[in-house]
Amino acid sequence: MLLAVNRYNNEGSMAPPTQSAIRVAFQGEHGAFSEAAAISLLARNIITVPRATFDSAFRAIAEGAADALLAPVENSLAGSVVRVYDLLLESNLGIVAETILPIEHHLIGCPGATLAGLKSVSSHPMALAQCERFFLSHPELKRVPAEDTAGSVRDVLATGDRSAAGIAGRPAAIRYGGVILSESIQDNAENFTRFVLLVPKDSTSQNPLLGPRMDGNIMKASLAMRLAHQPGALLAALQPFADHGINLLKIESRPIHGRPWEYQFFLDVQTDAPGKLHEALHQAKAATSFFQVLGRYSPARPAQS
Amino acid sequence: MLLAVNRYNNEGSMAPPTQSAIRVAFQGEHGAFSEAAAISLLARNIITVPRATFDSAFRAIAEGAADALLAPVENSLAGSVVRVYDLLLESNLGIVAETILPIEHHLIGCPGATLAGLKSVSSHPMALAQCERFFLSHPELKRVPAEDTAGSVRDVLATGDRSAAGIAGRPAAIRYGGVILSESIQDNAENFTRFVLLVPKDSTSQNPLLGPRMDGNIMKASLAMRLAHQPGALLAALQPFADHGINLLKIESRPIHGRPWEYQFFLDVQTDAPGKLHEALHQAKAATSFFQVLGRYSPARPAQS
Repeated sequence: MLLAVNRYNNEGSMAPPTQSAIRVAFQGEHGAFSEAAAISLLARNIITVPRATFDSAFRAIAEGAADALLAPVENSLAGSVVRVYDLLLESNLGIVAETILPIEHHLIGCPGATLAGLKSVSSHPMALAQCERFFLSHPELKRVPAEDTAGSVRDVLATGDRSAAGIAGRPAAIRYGGVILSESIQDNAENFTRFVLLVPKDSTSQNPLLGPRMDGNIMKASLAMRLAHQPGALLAALQPFADHGINLLKIESRPIHGRPWEYQFFLDVQTDAPGKLHEALHQAKAATSFFQVLGRYSPARPAQS
Repeated sequence: MLLAVNRYNNEGSMAPPTQSAIRVAFQGEHGAFSEAAAISLLARNIITVPRATFDSAFRAIAEGAADALLAPVENSLAGSVVRVYDLLLESNLGIVAETILPIEHHLIGCPGATLAGLKSVSSHPMALAQCERFFLSHPELKRVPAEDTAGSVRDVLATGDRSAAGIAGRPAAIRYGGVILSESIQDNAENFTRFVLLVPKDSTSQNPLLGPRMDGNIMKASLAMRLAHQPGALLAALQPFADHGINLLKIESRPIHGRPWEYQFFLDVQTDAPGKLHEALHQAKAATSFFQVLGRYSPARPAQS
C-alpha cells in the first residue's frame, strides 16, 4: 500500500497531511463505513489511519499514530460490537460524539463492467450472507470470500477484471473509482450502524473538534458498571435514573472473564436535564461495585438514507 | 455434497437414517461447533441437517426437513447472536435445552502435512482475526478467507494439498480426516459459545428427547418483552423478579425495526424455586406491552475444555 494515511478535504480529494490535521484510526480498509463515519463527524482536515483489527486500531492511539478513534458500537442486524466495548473499558479513551449511518451494500465493478458480464463477486462473508436474495436470483455468480468489504472493491479495481465485482458501500466505490452495477442489494433495508468518536480523556482540551459535542441541551451518557450477582442488584442501580426521569436507551449485560458470578452492564441513558443526570449518576454509582462513565455527548440526529 | 444429512451414533460413525432418528438443523457445514453441540445434547440417534444461513436453518423446520434446530445464542467474545433471537421470536419454536462449548481453533491439514511445509491457511475471516498472534509469528503463511470454518477444512482435505491448511474446531478435523498441526491457536483462551435446542411448541409431547429437560430443580427461563419508552418502565417489569428472589442472568435491549421509541428486551432468569418463577412471570407480564416466554429449561453445567 502506498499511502498509510490520507487526508480528506471537503471535496473528497486527497492532499498531503498538515500538522493541524486530526489523525483518526479505524478498523478496515480505506473506503470503509467507519472512515465515512469519521468524515461525517469531523468533516475536512482529518487524516484517516486504517488498521486491520480493532485491537490494532486502539493500539494506534497508544503508539502515537492517531489522535482519535472512530469505531462501530452497534448494528441494527448484528447487535453490539462487543470487542469495541471491551477495548474501550481497558483504554483511557472516552466517547465525545456519535453518528448513525445506513449500511447499504452495492455491487461494485470496474468501469465498463456490466452485471450480465460478471462471473464472480467477492466480499466479507457477512456482506455475502446479507445479500442472500441477490445471489439466489443470480446463481451464475461465484461467491468469493474476502477479508474486508472495501478491500474486495480495491482488489477488483486493481486487477481491472470486468468479470469480477465486490460488495461494499458507496465510499468504497468513490475511493477506488469503481462503478455501482446494482444498488442496495442487501436483503434487509433496515441496516444501520452506530459509530462513536473516541478520544484520550486527557487530550480533550487540545483541539475543540475532539471535545464533547453538545448541540442543544439533550445529553446522552454511556456507562459501564459491575454488580453483585444477587436479586435486586440491578434494580438498585437503575432506580436513580427512573427517580430523576432519565430515559434508558440501551442496556446489555456481559459476563466478566474469569468471574462467573459477577456481571458487567453497559447502559446508554438520555435526558434533557443534564443537571439531573449528574445527580442520578452519583446515586447509581453508590449501588455498584464498579462504575465508569464512558462519555457524555449529544445524541445523533435520526439517520438519513 | 454427497450426503445432505448424516446420522451419528455414539461411536461417531455414520449409519443410514432411521424413522425414529431426530433431524436437527444447524447453520454451517458438517463438522461445525453447532453440530457438535447437537450431538452433545442429544447423543446418538440424530440426523444433522446443515444449512448455509440461520434463515434457511429456521426454514428447515417450517418445510418439514427437520424436527429441531440447534443454534448459537451467545459467544463470550462476539456477544449475542442477534439474528437467532429475531428468528426465534418470529417462529413457533421454544428453547428446551442449552449447552455451552469451548471454542478452540486448531490448524488442520492433510495427513502428512507439517506446519513448516505450509504456504496458506484458510478460514472464515472471524476465525482468522481471532488467531492474529499465530499469523504474526508465521508471516510466511498466506491468509485465505473462506465462507465457513469447517468448510475450509473440508476443502483443504478434498484437494489433498499438503501446503494448505484450514482453521476450525476438532469436530471438523475428525469429520474430514484432517490432522491437527497446531492446537488452540486462538488469541483468547476464554472463548465459549452457548447453544440452545429449539423445538416446535406443539411437538414437545411427541418425543421425550425433544421435551423440556429438567435435571434437578434449578430452572432457567428465557424471556422477550416490549416496554414503552418511558422512565421506570423497565424497573416495573424487573421488580417482580427481585421480589421473588429470582436471579437475572442476562438482559439485553434491542431497538424494534420501524418503531424508534419502543424497545424489546431479552432476559434470562434463574431460580431454584420454579413455583415462584411462575408468579413472577405473571406479574412481569402485566407491566409490559408484549411478553413471551421463549423457553423453560435446566441451565447448562459449567463448560469443560
